Amino acid sequence: MNAAKPKARVVIIGGGFGGLNAARALAKRRDVEVLLIDRTNHHLFQPLLYQVATTSLAPSDITAPIRWVLREQKNVTTLLGTVEKIERRNRSIRVVGEPEPVHYDYLIVAPGTRHSYFGNDGWERWAPGLKSVEDARRIRKRFLLAFERAEWEEDEAARKALLTFVIVGGGPTGVELAGVLPEMCRVAFRPDFRRIDTSMVKVILLEGGPRILPAFPERLSQRACRDLERLGVEVRVNTMVTDITEQGVRVGEEFIPTQSVFWAAGNAASPLVKTLDVPLDRSGRVLVEPDLSLPGDGRVFVVGDVAAVKQPDGRWVPGVAPAANQMGKWAAGNILRQLDGESSRPFRYFNKGDLATIGRHKAVASFFDGKLQFRGYIAWFLWLFVHIAYLVGFRNRISVLLQWAYNYIFFERGVRLITETEDASMSRHPATQGRTGEYHARASDSVAGGG
Amino acid sequence: MNAAKPKARVVIIGGGFGGLNAARALAKRRDVEVLLIDRTNHHLFQPLLYQVATTSLAPSDITAPIRWVLREQKNVTTLLGTVEKIERRNRSIRVVGEPEPVHYDYLIVAPGTRHSYFGNDGWERWAPGLKSVEDARRIRKRFLLAFERAEWEEDEAARKALLTFVIVGGGPTGVELAGVLPEMCRVAFRPDFRRIDTSMVKVILLEGGPRILPAFPERLSQRACRDLERLGVEVRVNTMVTDITEQGVRVGEEFIPTQSVFWAAGNAASPLVKTLDVPLDRSGRVLVEPDLSLPGDGRVFVVGDVAAVKQPDGRWVPGVAPAANQMGKWAAGNILRQLDGESSRPFRYFNKGDLATIGRHKAVASFFDGKLQFRGYIAWFLWLFVHIAYLVGFRNRISVLLQWAYNYIFFERGVRLITETEDASMSRHPATQGRTGEYHARASDSVAGGG
Repeated sequence: MNAAKPKARVVIIGGGFGGLNAARALAKRRDVEVLLIDRTNHHLFQPLLYQVATTSLAPSDITAPIRWVLREQKNVTTLLGTVEKIERRNRSIRVVGEPEPVHYDYLIVAPGTRHSYFGNDGWERWAPGLKSVEDARRIRKRFLLAFERAEWEEDEAARKALLTFVIVGGGPTGVELAGVLPEMCRVAFRPDFRRIDTSMVKVILLEGGPRILPAFPERLSQRACRDLERLGVEVRVNTMVTDITEQGVRVGEEFIPTQSVFWAAGNAASPLVKTLDVPLDRSGRVLVEPDLSLPGDGRVFVVGDVAAVKQPDGRWVPGVAPAANQMGKWAAGNILRQLDGESSRPFRYFNKGDLATIGRHKAVASFFDGKLQFRGYIAWFLWLFVHIAYLVGFRNRISVLLQWAYNYIFFERGVRLITETEDASMSRHPATQGRTGEYHARASDSVAGGG
Repeated sequence: MNAAKPKARVVIIGGGFGGLNAARALAKRRDVEVLLIDRTNHHLFQPLLYQVATTSLAPSDITAPIRWVLREQKNVTTLLGTVEKIERRNRSIRVVGEPEPVHYDYLIVAPGTRHSYFGNDGWERWAPGLKSVEDARRIRKRFLLAFERAEWEEDEAARKALLTFVIVGGGPTGVELAGVLPEMCRVAFRPDFRRIDTSMVKVILLEGGPRILPAFPERLSQRACRDLERLGVEVRVNTMVTDITEQGVRVGEEFIPTQSVFWAAGNAASPLVKTLDVPLDRSGRVLVEPDLSLPGDGRVFVVGDVAAVKQPDGRWVPGVAPAANQMGKWAAGNILRQLDGESSRPFRYFNKGDLATIGRHKAVASFFDGKLQFRGYIAWFLWLFVHIAYLVGFRNRISVLLQWAYNYIFFERGVRLITETEDASMSRHPATQGRTGEYHARASDSVAGGG
């Protein structure tokens, strides 16, 4: 940057919904120079990540290079890098592999959350969560390998375990994952397998609280539960998982044999926010001021699902994409206000509504705190429309629309790639042992002519 | 398989062009049971793999699950597994992780080739080749990381090295890769970077022989060379690489500093064919009988680019997709002839033509041994048409067509995902050291107001 010295450098950590919207809100200000740092080179549309995990969409459909998204905004520079530490007393951050600190005048912290296993980190190996493209690829691989293994499994009980899928957590991610599995398994995959009876597939959704979709009005929760059960999903509420192993899930006294457990139950803030050296809540989120700034430090703002913000009505702002969007914009606005000599304003979350889809044609939607509710077809179309509208990039919108149309019309799933299996999990897995049983030496049966 | 005992079991190793076409040619024969084994779950359309490596297409655009492709063919069972050994005396194969051998009455061996570094296996680390989806993702990541690093590199020489791309091998893969890089780097990426002068990008194509595209008529080779040079590619023929390191490529006395070398120079047959225990040629290919069977063993056929087959005119059948298609069908036909008590027939390769594209609007095409030649626009349209026509799956055809249209119209590249960089190569790479030089502590410059 050889141009005239900028007035203020705003560093943004994270190119998710919060970070990206903060950067955009700082456009057109020549007195601001923005540096956006992310561990990956892409913005990820997380609400559709479960569709990558379930072979409906490709990773490239729901991602866009951050620097491409911001290419027209000349006051933004994008850096691929991992921030390891925030050093507020020097107003700088430390990037892995960088000998020098990176200075900021204002800092927007939006690194997002990871899954939380409530202290049972050993469960992650058997119950992956869904936050990144890599997570989605890993889950997709698990789904597909479970079928590949089941096709060759001789033992009835082992095959049953392979075709049992357990989802832990009844929020939108868990519900949407559970809703898409039955059709995928029983319809899309059926013609491809010779020995599996795809009606044997069992999908179990476990929720610790009294109902699924707790953020929705109770009536919609019940509707979603009924829709899932009609699809054949076994929904169990008030059910706490007590152990997860390679062999299955323990729920109280019961043990459910399965090799496919998916974790959609808990989030914990990125450990980076610990280096802010301020009080955190139980999930590791930063207890910010009403204007989203750090207590006692008006130069640092925290946005997205790592921020714990109380609304005037006493409720916490939920960790969802629209809230992150709004916080990002708000924090940027408060920085601009400070630069203009004005005082910053408290954040107000506007809940545009909640949406969750349950398989084909079915969804639930709640607007204005549940005053306006939709179910079934209408909610499903709303869901489709909203997700296409908020996707980043024209190419992604077209691509997702076409993939959906294809999946819808042909009852097929297009993205069923398993990679990196050559010498990994597949053959070492105990479930695959002896699966070629009926293929062994039968040379004596042969009547075919020789050469 | 509880049905009536089949007459003959044909085992096919490999779901590439050869294996897939062999399986298809065995359809409608109730007396044949087919078992197809592949290390991956997908058929890969290798001729377009370079477009995945160069961010034009997504992996899912050019792959299709093998069991999906063969879903209607009820006499085929597909197995995901790695064959480690062929035991001809027992008429069986060994699969990794399987305690029991898998029996065959007839065997079609089509495992394909990997890159060959002519004894310099250490080069692979710095000069990846392009055979699998993983390879393409790895190369794509290299391309994209080179730009990410260059954007932050302070040192002129280091930046120049980061923006130098060397392709070793002037066959169709090397030429097509070289042809697509200039536009991608200088046009598609330009608006996204702040500090890189994308006109600094240098693409060098190295060919050991006297001309690129040696399979084409000489006139077309010259044309392709001129087209590449017009795009700004430096084409060097009669040039042997003598060393490849982390810092660059040695060519005789000269050292070209670069961190991006791509290997498109040599192939070697899958080591699996060694277990056939028959004579191999220098590239490890099996010297088969004219009917594609193994010398002295009419129950084993070898097809695709692992088979060394001499045509009646003394030339070898080339290791290209159409040849693999034809061989797969032919081997299957010969098996059916044997089952019907007829004798097998010698394979005749029908060369439908050779095609290679060089960037936008440009390609070379040769038909009937060069008697019919096309260049420029016509060849380019032919290339597009042929590649779409031969892609497996309706969904893939539509998706590739749309991606191409998008890339063509918007001069953009849609698939620019870097994954798994979090704590890997990026920050450990020496080229990234000190790249935030201009960002270090400048707190004293700051005039922005505090909180």
